[in-house]
Amino acid sequence: MTSTAEGFGVRLAARVAERESQIVLGLDPDPGRLWPSAAAAASACGSPAEQAATAVTAHCRAAIDAAGPACVAVKPQLACFERLGAPGWMALATVVRYARAAGLLVIADGKRGDIDVSAAAYGQALVGRTPTPFGEVDGLGADAFTASPYMGLDTLETLAVAARGAEAGIFVLVRTSNPGAADLEDLELAAGGTVAERVAALVDGLGRADDGPLAAIGAVVGATAPDQLGRLRELMPRTPFLLPGIGAQGGRVEDLAPVFAAGRAAGLITASRSIVHAHEKAGADPASAARAEAERLRETAWALGADAA
Amino acid sequence: MTSTAEGFGVRLAARVAERESQIVLGLDPDPGRLWPSAAAAASACGSPAEQAATAVTAHCRAAIDAAGPACVAVKPQLACFERLGAPGWMALATVVRYARAAGLLVIADGKRGDIDVSAAAYGQALVGRTPTPFGEVDGLGADAFTASPYMGLDTLETLAVAARGAEAGIFVLVRTSNPGAADLEDLELAAGGTVAERVAALVDGLGRADDGPLAAIGAVVGATAPDQLGRLRELMPRTPFLLPGIGAQGGRVEDLAPVFAAGRAAGLITASRSIVHAHEKAGADPASAARAEAERLRETAWALGADAA
Repeated sequence: MTSTAEGFGVRLAARVAERESQIVLGLDPDPGRLWPSAAAAASACGSPAEQAATAVTAHCRAAIDAAGPACVAVKPQLACFERLGAPGWMALATVVRYARAAGLLVIADGKRGDIDVSAAAYGQALVGRTPTPFGEVDGLGADAFTASPYMGLDTLETLAVAARGAEAGIFVLVRTSNPGAADLEDLELAAGGTVAERVAALVDGLGRADDGPLAAIGAVVGATAPDQLGRLRELMPRTPFLLPGIGAQGGRVEDLAPVFAAGRAAGLITASRSIVHAHEKAGADPASAARAEAERLRETAWALGADAA
Repeated sequence: MTSTAEGFGVRLAARVAERESQIVLGLDPDPGRLWPSAAAAASACGSPAEQAATAVTAHCRAAIDAAGPACVAVKPQLACFERLGAPGWMALATVVRYARAAGLLVIADGKRGDIDVSAAAYGQALVGRTPTPFGEVDGLGADAFTASPYMGLDTLETLAVAARGAEAGIFVLVRTSNPGAADLEDLELAAGGTVAERVAALVDGLGRADDGPLAAIGAVVGATAPDQLGRLRELMPRTPFLLPGIGAQGGRVEDLAPVFAAGRAAGLITASRSIVHAHEKAGADPASAARAEAERLRETAWALGADAA
């Protein structure tokens, strides 16, 4: 399959250039730690789930208003919405629409992966639509979603087909930012290389169906293991990297230079708590602190990519 | 951490003995392929998503009424509900309550896995509850959920803690039933053994915190690779196995004997399409065909476990 001119890789590169940003605002709202203005926005009636979902929506909208202008995308963490049940899923849909209306791409972060029919259903839920005898049901309308490779190539292929059908992309977990990445992803294989490097080869292969400088099939690569970035870029020369681990997890933007060998849009830097909770360190109001931190990250990363662009 | 007398392993063993069944009814409703009685149950008003969710709920309830008496648990596939948005999540919650009221355990099948805070949020969503300033929000109320090990032990530990806090269990993907399992799970490691065997060791280790003959931390092991069952049982002597791959995927109940070395409750056989779509082969009405097929599986599996129990 060959992607159209509107494939995700092409859209991503255009959006990064237009917004001059590689920053992804992570949205993982904790109902107990919302911005005060958002917590106050919840109406006094409705179930706890409905009130919490209203407050979470207000929080995410305020965060998008504040930090969005310095970002190219948002990344809602699906569990944070699912834990509020149906009202939470409705909040998620509202936040996705709000972010897209603000000119931001949306990366649904649920790390999904399953066999054929179930993988296709995830595609329908996140980026596609579902035919039913009662009419078509729109999915979430995300531009991309994260996926887990554990079950192998057939599961990733089904997700890739679903994504391309919606001109969307996927980001496959390759080498994650958490300490546990050492338990499985870093293991050496008898045939040479690590598990993560084998996954990298699968991801690179999947992305070859896409024309243009960037594939629609991306990789999640933690910013906490900068020594692996060069090797992973070599294995996936046209793959957009989604880079968590900056800030709260200890990664530094300055260490990400090898990623941008494939161009500025080839590295998306996600930051969640370090932006949304910046006021706890900075002492300013939440919106100003978030805006300043997102802009600081944007500038640092953009300067880094100057040679590559 | 030591589990109480009410830990998931203990509950599972008691329920299997009480119901004399190791069969798990998989629920992955396709709105285009519902039982005719269920499709007719959708009201004529509401959005397509609402109508489809009503029909999906009726379908799942009818399937539980028909096949439930021969089963010990149901396994709703989360993507099939998520693709209907908030109404789909509401349908899922209704189906979970209905199954539990019918005396069945519920295994939420979403293959989740993520870093610490996000893993904790999945636990809240599926088996726990979420504290909010507006009151506690109940999760789905499942008895167990499926999890992906790719990101390593820290992610599984967080899920295990969340599960045990709710007297629930998890089933970690170890060696799945799909052809893609060969791409990663079957790879030989430089240090010996396969990736799946390494995961098996992690799962066994995690389960040692549980007292009693069965751990609360289970494993997903496909019935399509019977030659691996003995070795995986050796590596995980007290781990409940969730066994997909029977029926539509080609696995045979008769090949599962090695699993039951750890007792009858140590192997749960899941079947979805082969039960729910049994009428397409059998020619009977959907409910009778589903009941007959579930009972046939139950009898075959129960006879197999007679020596082990």
